[in-house]
Amino acid sequence: MPELRHNVLTREWVIIATERAKRPQEFATKDDGKRVNPPYVPTCPFCPGNEAMTPPATLVIPDDGFWRVRVTPNKFAALSYEGERLRSFEGIRRTITGVGVHEVIIESPDHSKSTGLLEDSQVETLIDAYLNRFNFASQDPRVEQVTIFKNHGLAAGTSLDHPHSQIIGSPVITSQIRDRMINALRHFDEYGECIFCRVLEVELREKARIVMETEHFVAFVQFAAFTPFSMLIMPRRHMACFSEVSDAEAADLARILRSTLAKLYYGLMDPDFNYTIRTASREACGVKYFHWYLSIIPRLTKVAGFELGSGMFINTSLPEENASFLREVSAG
Amino acid sequence: MPELRHNVLTREWVIIATERAKRPQEFATKDDGKRVNPPYVPTCPFCPGNEAMTPPATLVIPDDGFWRVRVTPNKFAALSYEGERLRSFEGIRRTITGVGVHEVIIESPDHSKSTGLLEDSQVETLIDAYLNRFNFASQDPRVEQVTIFKNHGLAAGTSLDHPHSQIIGSPVITSQIRDRMINALRHFDEYGECIFCRVLEVELREKARIVMETEHFVAFVQFAAFTPFSMLIMPRRHMACFSEVSDAEAADLARILRSTLAKLYYGLMDPDFNYTIRTASREACGVKYFHWYLSIIPRLTKVAGFELGSGMFINTSLPEENASFLREVSAG
Repeated sequence: MPELRHNVLTREWVIIATERAKRPQEFATKDDGKRVNPPYVPTCPFCPGNEAMTPPATLVIPDDGFWRVRVTPNKFAALSYEGERLRSFEGIRRTITGVGVHEVIIESPDHSKSTGLLEDSQVETLIDAYLNRFNFASQDPRVEQVTIFKNHGLAAGTSLDHPHSQIIGSPVITSQIRDRMINALRHFDEYGECIFCRVLEVELREKARIVMETEHFVAFVQFAAFTPFSMLIMPRRHMACFSEVSDAEAADLARILRSTLAKLYYGLMDPDFNYTIRTASREACGVKYFHWYLSIIPRLTKVAGFELGSGMFINTSLPEENASFLREVSAG
Repeated sequence: MPELRHNVLTREWVIIATERAKRPQEFATKDDGKRVNPPYVPTCPFCPGNEAMTPPATLVIPDDGFWRVRVTPNKFAALSYEGERLRSFEGIRRTITGVGVHEVIIESPDHSKSTGLLEDSQVETLIDAYLNRFNFASQDPRVEQVTIFKNHGLAAGTSLDHPHSQIIGSPVITSQIRDRMINALRHFDEYGECIFCRVLEVELREKARIVMETEHFVAFVQFAAFTPFSMLIMPRRHMACFSEVSDAEAADLARILRSTLAKLYYGLMDPDFNYTIRTASREACGVKYFHWYLSIIPRLTKVAGFELGSGMFINTSLPEENASFLREVSAG
């Protein structure tokens, strides 16, 4: 019989289709497998030598006279850098001018290497760039929430192959963070504990859904994972805001992120995926009830009318099988 | 400058990318345009003569010795018809046995005719079937919420071409309905009015986003539409539950639904789409704060990492332009 599982972080029920669940390897990309890109493409705006094709860089992390990671404003920004944040209220209509920050973080000069295939040290530089730009965007008085995210592959919504992440500083708190914060605050009020710390403690005790552990982080498939192979990477130490990570934690995050993505790459033949960092804003650093984490969402299934109409997902795989499969895959 | 618009029904902000908005016709399907299917496919389990390929029908609406609409349990049901609804609570873990109802509603014997191309009278029969199965599923004591939905095309998550809808009776109230109800109840508490009636009143006054009107229904693009061409069809009369529609209203709903889908078909060259009916449960018939409606979501864009990480959508079209474009398209 299928099982409904409750996600305590989002208060959403997920149908785990235990009986018609597919085996983990059935989710591997079926077409030509891993994508093959050349290391340099003359027309790619993110390839070295083509820097003039993007707006001027806002951060360049150098490497022996060249760059390791390069950040530029998004040429097709969803929000405007210029202008004031103005609110308008008229009856039920509420609008805000679309101002904020929207940057592209080019992950390495190499066009061909997806994030999981980079050196750990390169991903460490990438995390440093995330922190730098997170702090930069957070300082903009028009910005309430900073979202770091990555799109890999067509199904994940990217149009450019060269590995890159993005950062958007939006003039409102995003609904996903707002709703998780309200939920976490209520849990803290009722039980006097961080709900995220509690989830981590239970996952570490039950072990069945752990994908890998490092000194400072744990990667696991959630008990009520909404899609196959979706995972959280959560810091062991309670921290509300991403910007609170220490240097040692940042380096460790690079290792576990790189390894987890490599496991997806080798285990499922380079699937399309998104990841995003869910964090409190910098002003909320230190609150006891929220806990930042990174969420990885492989795009292996389609969202259909039931999910759109109900908010309830049908996961045709078993979180425990996902995790045990990925545990066995070498991270290269 | 882009504009953030607030959806008062969901409390979600949407970025309307006014400057880089595409023209409506740019969203038309670019490949081979409208799909061409034969009217009968020997291997299709939903084609007439192949009734033995599905579980036995739970409803057959006859037509001159044959059937007009046929309903069967979904052969690959997400929820089990058999078994008790049992809840389990252990610490932060909450689970429920996956029991409920999952049926397929075959919209007509014709394999080739998508919903917008059927006769109005055929869609009327389809709406009658929706009502019949909604009431049937609602009577199951294990069911808390009934979701009617349709997937059209690969991007919308369907695997079978023969036009069909689905109905799922789930053992919990779905999160989308629960959250909308809480929001609507708060609005009623504060303003003493149904927020949906209010939205409809404002849309009818402003006119810019109306796609079409009939005696009992209005089809419009929401002010803060989260994706291009997503629309609501809302009854003019206040009704919390879909099962409250009168015969005249059901016939009128068939007309406006058929015409709206035909406008999408001809205007955007048969795009993939989902639709779903958002309704209170039958027990909540008559509540003053909720109002059922049908939501149509063409699948013209991809959900990427920002949407997954923030819950905030970037709509690269203008709701007002979407509506004025569709107003001009003939419904055939």
